[in-house]
Amino acid sequence: MKKFQSFSEWFDEVLFKAEIVDNRYPIKGFNVYKAWGAKIAKRITSMLEDLLDASSHDPMLFPVAISEDAFAKEAKHIKGFAAEVFWITHAGKRKLDKKMLLRPTSETAMYPMFAQWIRSHADLPLKVYQSVCVYRYETKATRPLLRMREFLWNEAHTAHEDWDSAEKQVKEAVAIYTNVFERLGLAYYLLKRPDFDKFAGAEYSIAFDSWNPDGRVNQIGTVHNLGENFAKAFGITYEDTDGTHRNVSQVCYGLGISRALAAVISQHGDDHGLVLPPEVAPVQVVVVPIPYKEKEGEVNAYAKMVFEAVKKAGFRVKLDDSEKTPGEKFYYWEMLGVPVRVEVGPRDLKERKVTIAERANLKRSVVDFDEAASAIKETFNSITESLLRRSRQVLEEMTVNAKDLDSLKEAVRNRKIVRVCWCENVGCAETIKEVSGGEVRGHRVDVEEKPESPCVVCGKKAEKVVYIAKAY
Amino acid sequence: MKKFQSFSEWFDEVLFKAEIVDNRYPIKGFNVYKAWGAKIAKRITSMLEDLLDASSHDPMLFPVAISEDAFAKEAKHIKGFAAEVFWITHAGKRKLDKKMLLRPTSETAMYPMFAQWIRSHADLPLKVYQSVCVYRYETKATRPLLRMREFLWNEAHTAHEDWDSAEKQVKEAVAIYTNVFERLGLAYYLLKRPDFDKFAGAEYSIAFDSWNPDGRVNQIGTVHNLGENFAKAFGITYEDTDGTHRNVSQVCYGLGISRALAAVISQHGDDHGLVLPPEVAPVQVVVVPIPYKEKEGEVNAYAKMVFEAVKKAGFRVKLDDSEKTPGEKFYYWEMLGVPVRVEVGPRDLKERKVTIAERANLKRSVVDFDEAASAIKETFNSITESLLRRSRQVLEEMTVNAKDLDSLKEAVRNRKIVRVCWCENVGCAETIKEVSGGEVRGHRVDVEEKPESPCVVCGKKAEKVVYIAKAY
Repeated sequence: MKKFQSFSEWFDEVLFKAEIVDNRYPIKGFNVYKAWGAKIAKRITSMLEDLLDASSHDPMLFPVAISEDAFAKEAKHIKGFAAEVFWITHAGKRKLDKKMLLRPTSETAMYPMFAQWIRSHADLPLKVYQSVCVYRYETKATRPLLRMREFLWNEAHTAHEDWDSAEKQVKEAVAIYTNVFERLGLAYYLLKRPDFDKFAGAEYSIAFDSWNPDGRVNQIGTVHNLGENFAKAFGITYEDTDGTHRNVSQVCYGLGISRALAAVISQHGDDHGLVLPPEVAPVQVVVVPIPYKEKEGEVNAYAKMVFEAVKKAGFRVKLDDSEKTPGEKFYYWEMLGVPVRVEVGPRDLKERKVTIAERANLKRSVVDFDEAASAIKETFNSITESLLRRSRQVLEEMTVNAKDLDSLKEAVRNRKIVRVCWCENVGCAETIKEVSGGEVRGHRVDVEEKPESPCVVCGKKAEKVVYIAKAY
Repeated sequence: MKKFQSFSEWFDEVLFKAEIVDNRYPIKGFNVYKAWGAKIAKRITSMLEDLLDASSHDPMLFPVAISEDAFAKEAKHIKGFAAEVFWITHAGKRKLDKKMLLRPTSETAMYPMFAQWIRSHADLPLKVYQSVCVYRYETKATRPLLRMREFLWNEAHTAHEDWDSAEKQVKEAVAIYTNVFERLGLAYYLLKRPDFDKFAGAEYSIAFDSWNPDGRVNQIGTVHNLGENFAKAFGITYEDTDGTHRNVSQVCYGLGISRALAAVISQHGDDHGLVLPPEVAPVQVVVVPIPYKEKEGEVNAYAKMVFEAVKKAGFRVKLDDSEKTPGEKFYYWEMLGVPVRVEVGPRDLKERKVTIAERANLKRSVVDFDEAASAIKETFNSITESLLRRSRQVLEEMTVNAKDLDSLKEAVRNRKIVRVCWCENVGCAETIKEVSGGEVRGHRVDVEEKPESPCVVCGKKAEKVVYIAKAY
């Protein structure tokens, strides 16, 4: 398949033809989300926000601008991000007294406020989220949706009484993200990052690495246990029941909306274009009349009836009664990934039936007019499941074991995700990267995997089974 | 009333206590939207977006960063905005080859793309919108929500075949904004700005100036007919049916979400806090049990039952079963502006009734349990109407006529909006501003008002009846 053979071209073509983004914006690393892309992104965002709302997170909005002072407070954090922040230095013709940066992530925007809001244990837990754009000056080649200097994400930040409550929050965050990704039919590895690759300022980081057809992994979500690091830097303390003042324990987690959208496109798409899970499809059903000689009027009227019935059943449906030929319409709506096409021709009309075509597997079936809505509903239930199953199968097939550096190198070159045993020595991770180009992405946290052979580099006792891949 | 006597203090207190915004963010002109404020803002935004969707506008997302080249293309536009844009000049430690600005509005972000997208008359009309933050370096004193350097808005941009189609679009835009503002119960003057005060690059500008308790007006929405000015600057042309290449005609309109929120707060609020129109209230109904001696269990159980019934009827309802006293709960939910409070006491329980208290007028009434949902529904229908009526009455009372400069000056000092006759001479407008501090905001476009006396300044023939006020 073209998608697997030349992913980059396939991806650019689909993004353009399915009107997801336009990458011709005159500033590198910034792109325009066209209507179809903006609508899918909004549905993914809402899906997540609903779950955050239901688990007592408060929506808020913090400024895009962060002061240099606040940014510099947590030593490791600034070290990790300093090279990739954009600086606002002037306004009008004036030089600003204090320059400001565009948020690359919002710890340093939020935590000065947390320090004012949190006084006692009664103020905890504090659970806040926002859906915004963030800004990072990527120096590697940018890629639409996957590696941009401006991208859409949702970030949540929480504060708790102690380490154990924070640990529970890590689990809640993982469960929420898992729910979203499963409903999007996405397959990924849930990995604890090696210590050298954790978030700047965190105790540890967990990440969702989804597969991409070119063998790279796409980090679509991360959950960080920050311990008391930021609490100490920003003075976020609370008075406990016994009168003692303690540092809060913090967790933060981010889900890349742009990247999740990229994963939906690249995992499910095929040579005909997008394949969208019904829950996030801006249009779920398209009704296409297939007029035939002197039957145009009748067929169009019947198509309208079908459209009304499907609409009444609560689906997001569109009747394509444009001037285009049925073939052009099929091509267009397949490119856009609309989950179900309902074809209405003279024979359907005569038999009071409709023809249902599923985008995901291109299968067609004929059902009675009265059963159209329930047939679509059944189809929708099965689509997401089968997308998920299919995607997990690809991930499995894409993953191979390697016991020595040569086979690791060969596997990465063949666009595989490679499972190896590792001694946890940073030097060995560096060797892996030098030799193969792949990175040590971490070990699985949802499944326990015990190393059964020595470190793939040094041959000493291995501590972890880790996954190696190139990454976006 | 305190609100009218010392608006500024009243406003700050309500914003803080009702958790709308926190103004202690360490950068001037940038504030944090807390959960209650963020939720109301989101509902106002959705209300507008639904109308834009229904009238064939496409949601898109354009970058926050605009190149200096694009910004400079329309001569009047750059002249109008140059003094108030924030510049991004560096990334990491590097100086950028080309500096970029944060969008103060998105003409210059969008129109280079429009030029690529529009080829023929079949591509028209193009109707695009986005809900984003914009950035303007205000040099006047900043005020939370009302005059910020970062604020929330929705902007729409359209392109048409000719002037007449653009004129129709102006009318559609005005109708959409009118719908939103009426549903928010807001009163305003719909004014055509004098030529010297139109949007930088427009042919003319229409604005919604809402009243504020301190006598200033708050511009909550604007609609601009751009003619072919930007089409010429950005080369946005289309091929007509006859093969001719023509410039598109453009319209753009913006609704300030932050400012509309400010107007809702300041027009409807009272000395007890916010008063929210039900449609945008994050919580529409709060159920408060009033336990009484040995009846706590029964009253709480009944309150739970009432809560479930109201919830089932589809309202956004909250049961406040916290440890606070009923008095504390009343105070809290009144401050937050929740439209209806349902009180459930021993007597209500005994008679299977509930007590309904309306936030807007503080009236209470007792209804049967079975009729609670329908009574709330009726109340909701009347609330928005009566808020609108009440607000329009204030606007009327706040507006006075003046026939000479002394009475104009006096009226502005007394926090009035002043109706005067004006000759359309810029010098006379300048005199008005110098003498009274008020600005010529324009003449009404929804109602024809003929000048019946000479210009308030020069005594020559007046051309327009205009409204004078200080403005945010």
